[in-house]
Amino acid sequence: MNRALPFTHPPHNLLIEPIVRHALEEDFGRAGDITSELTIEASARATAKLAARKAGTIAGLIAAEIAFRLVDPSLTFTYEKPDGSTVTAGTTLAVIEGPARAVLSGERVALNFAGHLSGVATATHALVEAIAGTKARIICTRKTTPGLRVLEKYAVRCGGGFNHRFGLDDAAMIKDNHIAAAGGIAPALARLRAGLGHMVRIEVEVDSLAQLEEALANGADTILLDNMSLEDLRRAVALAKGRAVLEASGNVTLASVRAIAETGVNYISSGAITHSAPNLDIGLDF
Amino acid sequence: MNRALPFTHPPHNLLIEPIVRHALEEDFGRAGDITSELTIEASARATAKLAARKAGTIAGLIAAEIAFRLVDPSLTFTYEKPDGSTVTAGTTLAVIEGPARAVLSGERVALNFAGHLSGVATATHALVEAIAGTKARIICTRKTTPGLRVLEKYAVRCGGGFNHRFGLDDAAMIKDNHIAAAGGIAPALARLRAGLGHMVRIEVEVDSLAQLEEALANGADTILLDNMSLEDLRRAVALAKGRAVLEASGNVTLASVRAIAETGVNYISSGAITHSAPNLDIGLDF
Amino acid sequence: MNRALPFTHPPHNLLIEPIVRHALEEDFGRAGDITSELTIEASARATAKLAARKAGTIAGLIAAEIAFRLVDPSLTFTYEKPDGSTVTAGTTLAVIEGPARAVLSGERVALNFAGHLSGVATATHALVEAIAGTKARIICTRKTTPGLRVLEKYAVRCGGGFNHRFGLDDAAMIKDNHIAAAGGIAPALARLRAGLGHMVRIEVEVDSLAQLEEALANGADTILLDNMSLEDLRRAVALAKGRAVLEASGNVTLASVRAIAETGVNYISSGAITHSAPNLDIGLDF
Amino acid sequence: MNRALPFTHPPHNLLIEPIVRHALEEDFGRAGDITSELTIEASARATAKLAARKAGTIAGLIAAEIAFRLVDPSLTFTYEKPDGSTVTAGTTLAVIEGPARAVLSGERVALNFAGHLSGVATATHALVEAIAGTKARIICTRKTTPGLRVLEKYAVRCGGGFNHRFGLDDAAMIKDNHIAAAGGIAPALARLRAGLGHMVRIEVEVDSLAQLEEALANGADTILLDNMSLEDLRRAVALAKGRAVLEASGNVTLASVRAIAETGVNYISSGAITHSAPNLDIGLDF
Amino acid sequence: MNRALPFTHPPHNLLIEPIVRHALEEDFGRAGDITSELTIEASARATAKLAARKAGTIAGLIAAEIAFRLVDPSLTFTYEKPDGSTVTAGTTLAVIEGPARAVLSGERVALNFAGHLSGVATATHALVEAIAGTKARIICTRKTTPGLRVLEKYAVRCGGGFNHRFGLDDAAMIKDNHIAAAGGIAPALARLRAGLGHMVRIEVEVDSLAQLEEALANGADTILLDNMSLEDLRRAVALAKGRAVLEASGNVTLASVRAIAETGVNYISSGAITHSAPNLDIGLDF
Amino acid sequence: MNRALPFTHPPHNLLIEPIVRHALEEDFGRAGDITSELTIEASARATAKLAARKAGTIAGLIAAEIAFRLVDPSLTFTYEKPDGSTVTAGTTLAVIEGPARAVLSGERVALNFAGHLSGVATATHALVEAIAGTKARIICTRKTTPGLRVLEKYAVRCGGGFNHRFGLDDAAMIKDNHIAAAGGIAPALARLRAGLGHMVRIEVEVDSLAQLEEALANGADTILLDNMSLEDLRRAVALAKGRAVLEASGNVTLASVRAIAETGVNYISSGAITHSAPNLDIGLDF
Repeated sequence: MNRALPFTHPPHNLLIEPIVRHALEEDFGRAGDITSELTIEASARATAKLAARKAGTIAGLIAAEIAFRLVDPSLTFTYEKPDGSTVTAGTTLAVIEGPARAVLSGERVALNFAGHLSGVATATHALVEAIAGTKARIICTRKTTPGLRVLEKYAVRCGGGFNHRFGLDDAAMIKDNHIAAAGGIAPALARLRAGLGHMVRIEVEVDSLAQLEEALANGADTILLDNMSLEDLRRAVALAKGRAVLEASGNVTLASVRAIAETGVNYISSGAITHSAPNLDIGLDF
Repeated sequence: MNRALPFTHPPHNLLIEPIVRHALEEDFGRAGDITSELTIEASARATAKLAARKAGTIAGLIAAEIAFRLVDPSLTFTYEKPDGSTVTAGTTLAVIEGPARAVLSGERVALNFAGHLSGVATATHALVEAIAGTKARIICTRKTTPGLRVLEKYAVRCGGGFNHRFGLDDAAMIKDNHIAAAGGIAPALARLRAGLGHMVRIEVEVDSLAQLEEALANGADTILLDNMSLEDLRRAVALAKGRAVLEASGNVTLASVRAIAETGVNYISSGAITHSAPNLDIGLDF
Repeated sequence: MNRALPFTHPPHNLLIEPIVRHALEEDFGRAGDITSELTIEASARATAKLAARKAGTIAGLIAAEIAFRLVDPSLTFTYEKPDGSTVTAGTTLAVIEGPARAVLSGERVALNFAGHLSGVATATHALVEAIAGTKARIICTRKTTPGLRVLEKYAVRCGGGFNHRFGLDDAAMIKDNHIAAAGGIAPALARLRAGLGHMVRIEVEVDSLAQLEEALANGADTILLDNMSLEDLRRAVALAKGRAVLEASGNVTLASVRAIAETGVNYISSGAITHSAPNLDIGLDF
Repeated sequence: MNRALPFTHPPHNLLIEPIVRHALEEDFGRAGDITSELTIEASARATAKLAARKAGTIAGLIAAEIAFRLVDPSLTFTYEKPDGSTVTAGTTLAVIEGPARAVLSGERVALNFAGHLSGVATATHALVEAIAGTKARIICTRKTTPGLRVLEKYAVRCGGGFNHRFGLDDAAMIKDNHIAAAGGIAPALARLRAGLGHMVRIEVEVDSLAQLEEALANGADTILLDNMSLEDLRRAVALAKGRAVLEASGNVTLASVRAIAETGVNYISSGAITHSAPNLDIGLDF
Repeated sequence: MNRALPFTHPPHNLLIEPIVRHALEEDFGRAGDITSELTIEASARATAKLAARKAGTIAGLIAAEIAFRLVDPSLTFTYEKPDGSTVTAGTTLAVIEGPARAVLSGERVALNFAGHLSGVATATHALVEAIAGTKARIICTRKTTPGLRVLEKYAVRCGGGFNHRFGLDDAAMIKDNHIAAAGGIAPALARLRAGLGHMVRIEVEVDSLAQLEEALANGADTILLDNMSLEDLRRAVALAKGRAVLEASGNVTLASVRAIAETGVNYISSGAITHSAPNLDIGLDF
Repeated sequence: MNRALPFTHPPHNLLIEPIVRHALEEDFGRAGDITSELTIEASARATAKLAARKAGTIAGLIAAEIAFRLVDPSLTFTYEKPDGSTVTAGTTLAVIEGPARAVLSGERVALNFAGHLSGVATATHALVEAIAGTKARIICTRKTTPGLRVLEKYAVRCGGGFNHRFGLDDAAMIKDNHIAAAGGIAPALARLRAGLGHMVRIEVEVDSLAQLEEALANGADTILLDNMSLEDLRRAVALAKGRAVLEASGNVTLASVRAIAETGVNYISSGAITHSAPNLDIGLDF
């Protein structure tokens, strides 16, 4: 199944099938699709096209496919466009063929995944396009919708973005409260190096150039420059001289992102691409 | 616990604790909050305020509370504003007191719930305010974020809206494909009445006044007027003469909603209030 | 698969497979079917007939089929009679063919489902037959066996009955305690209308004609006439004049049900058809 | 908590809380008890008595207690009669005190457990009483309601009966198909002894005295005498001379059970006490 | 599938698939096998051999097979040696063929099961070989790795050993604390016989010949001789005269086990074969 | 609760309680601790000491505590020695006080966790002691017992070791098959850098100094020197000049580990500390 563009490495079925199954259970409740069961013959078949009603970047067809197949394993789902495609309004994304009841019963859950995740991909892609030609990369955060992190992180990749850590445990992030509790950036970093293995990266969030220098001096792998002015971002890049990966965050919008990228930072993180991306309008045409 | 305004009837803990627990597991991964564990003493305590950084209508504090309590049952969560409150920027919503590690470990999940659900409530409330004085009500759809339906439906209520059916099973909704399969509105309604008990309401989606008349003639409880012009909505109201509940849907925006309400329809449904509401910015101040 | 008579709309596999799987886990424990594993060769095959040993109405073959297929997906289960059939003693219901171990390992769980649910269908069908020719319908309650509600509600439909609400959430039911707490039927109805959407029906339980009049006057959708005499039921029907659906409950037996139906009520509810129906004797013949 | 009569050894909370939680989730659905939430103030409190409306033997109060406590941990449940008590109609079984909403929301699930399991205990107790003075014991089977085996087995104990094996794995039971596949009782027993450890008892089901002799000669621990006449049961007892535990099954009714017991068999098994016991009428009085 | 030697009766897939699935989820975390996904084409295929790098007795291939098939159902797993085989170093155990990504993604979990369980089987087999020619049997305990009991018990059978009870519930074991609480072996046995059905065996743990005599006199089914000298074990065998099954435990090593077996006890139990068996080195060769 | 030495940062209860609960369910089966329930009065209380019978390093008391508390929340568990302590034979580790039944019912599961995890910690600690004074660190692998990874990784930390990645997803590890598939170390690294975010470390496994140079030249974060001679390890250290973290693996035993550490590598990984560590003998004394 060539279901996604090469760079997106979709999450394995084992990771997302439980999420899709839960969404179907949520929609089916106790009695299931009573309308379709009672108005449509069991033998009736349908062919339907999943189509983008607005232009955008697609993600989540893999969840839509699983939704339909869980409703009826005999149904076929043929990709016209893989996840990661950027399409115009009206583009057919996939063709679904099978028992009419199953197609209708799975429709809403499939669309809810595809619309939401394509919304995330589209918002990401807009930022990625806006900084084209710079060396910066757009990156997401942990500000994701509860229960959907693995899928939203995938949608960010479909949009051309990159992923920050997936949770509290796969990388360390030293913020102001940790610095205060540990008595400074240096002791906080020292404690983490003393406790963590060599495969865990450590990032320090700083809000001043003084803090940046302390973080650099103590060997932080990555430094988050929080809400700095463009001027300070430029100074930070000059100070760091490549000794650490620099990430800018705060006030990242379509309007501001290119200027931020041009300061020379390596990564620009946005919470909005996951928590505030409007749904991409995707429909099912019979 | 006076946790919510009277009209919101919050979902029972039994229904939402599993959702919050799953969100924590998603964020904790396998090793948990390695940064806080290694930089903060186990005995350190913290007091933090959950505060709205922007004006809006609040929902989801009950999920935030559960998140913090699941991380550490000894932590206290004191409501300053219950769910359903409409607040100005800067308003303190709740005060959290307990072990510093626990406050930090639970912060992101708590904020993800509160920010997302308050976003839904705020978007709902804007529509509700826009039609104030009319007899119409704002109502949501099944276009919800997978896994969060019960909470988003609650957030809609917090915003002053009402809930459409919770899933495929608690009410019947006859759409174009059902009508086609059954051979018309009349036979579709007949099949449902023959198969369903008396506690299930039946709605018919129509896109013309001719269909409306067929639905009325056959005793539909509720009729969804899909994407009709204001003119047709007015005619529909006149035709129905109160024989069925009328619901308008399609192109519902802040700009259009009042005019729709003034046609005399009973309900106006919006998918955008659940699937495209931007996050309300809520933060935690130490 | 034409597995059930048209009017029964069986619950979707997604809803019942977890219930059947759990029942198998309950029976298999930690070591599984030690007797069959050690006395029967892996290669041995068996053909067995599922047969009704007593006359009755059949329900739950869909659960029996899932049980056998979960034990061994290669096994075939061929329906001779679909759920909803009324059969004589000795009728073959289905033929199972596959590995002998699997047929024996799944037998008890399959029979436990088929026997219990056919018991429910048979008890329901007896009441349905008893009121044949009247316009009343037999309806179930929430007095179901814990964990089996969706299947017992389906068995009621297989027996020709109809379903009352599936739980506390898909319809409102105002009982004496709610009336007392709210200060009367009128304020209770008002609070529900103020809080609930238009797709939720509201029933009021009354035990006097005075209460009935209050409920009618305030627009209850459905009124439960609890434990009323035949005389009062007749008066209630006359009073209501079709303004609300009327449901009779209390002392519903095979002996009493026809007289109740003949009073003109619309629905007659019985807890006994789900909570006290004796098992229908169904066996497996090799 | 002296919650049960001494001989009943109730199942541990860890084993039954998941069953009760699932039953509540089944009843609460997605929106919970909408009627109580909207008609009763959060601060209202209630005291209610769980009472037997008919005479019988009680079981399942431990599940009722868990149901109420899961709905609201602050609620108190005070036992007046422990599980295993035989009571007259009208007896108060327990007193529940707490938030009125919680008492009403938990009522149906609590009663469903208590009524069903007390039905099982009552049916068991009737058989136990009928054979009083003989040395036989009443024993249950695997013909239990799917999902409730641990609770129904406990209800049998509450009624004064004993438990046969809990599943396919905790004892071996050689039936006709196993005998046929293995080539006789002797080789079937030999294969089980060669494969099973010393803590697993082995029972052989026989339907003739010839088979009984073969089972005795080959050292079966227990022998099930299936559907034998009283005369044959007596002969079987004489033949066995205590070399194996003898269990009679088939056609066990209140009318027949004493005569069966007087043949001298050790155990009499009944499927009806679990699969066909009518509910014991238990109610909640406010 | 002839997947295991005859005497091993492997646990049913329904019992172990959830364990294997959980292990995969543990290894895949949130993002899955990022290395293979990004470096290997989706279309690349691989053939790999599962091979024993050291001599030993094999168990757990059934779990390895499930692991690979859960990662990709299209992959084939061909047994060269069934579970229960004793093999030399270098023996190929199975051949896996399928998508290269899937083979690599499932490798570690498959090997973790096969290596661990083959370690248990190998340690068991060594004890079994050491007592060859005596009538004693090697038996395991409840000292198993949490979560893996069903698989470790199976591995013991693959090694030629037998299983003691699977948990606290499928047989009774009276230990010193129970004896003290009940006031002696006789009352403890009496209480169990009064409360338990006829399919549950009862074992008494004794540490002196005096206790042994009390246990024999009161009809214990099985007696555990705890940490007795060889001399006392011989005396115990002589005392028991076959009236009860005798089990020796304590200080069971490869060096001591034959002498223990030669005392005439029936069973010798070892915790070390499950809790301290080193992994058998099994690898995957491409 | 000062439950663990500072450097061990124990996994959060949310992560391990499900594991412990599952282990109890595995041991309780369907009927629970029938022996204790029937021989010990419900009111009897007990005090017991968890004690090391052999010298070693302790881990897993946090799981033992959870086990006892899940059996009975009223039970107290008082730490005498926290996880991470190295103790002599006979040392009391914790005191448990509560209902006698609960103490006995939870004993085996508690000991299974404590014994297994202390075995891992003890094996780790032995390697750590053996390289004392060098700058190398002992590190674990993904060769863990299925289902227990988070606890075994913690036990390694309790023993003074460090953790390698927790699964396939929190760091990348390029092995021979990935190199072959990608066409070399350079393209494999390039693909990962193109697809992964900045918080994911990338390790390359090499088995020659030529490969090492290619990995260094292409900026691998960490390089695994697989099964190299001491001579080659020294050359590797000299070649790397600190440009990458070096990890040695293969043939790591108590006898060999110091010489490996003295070559100057940064990390030494051992699968045996998790997959082959014998249980540490821990008992419960009443």
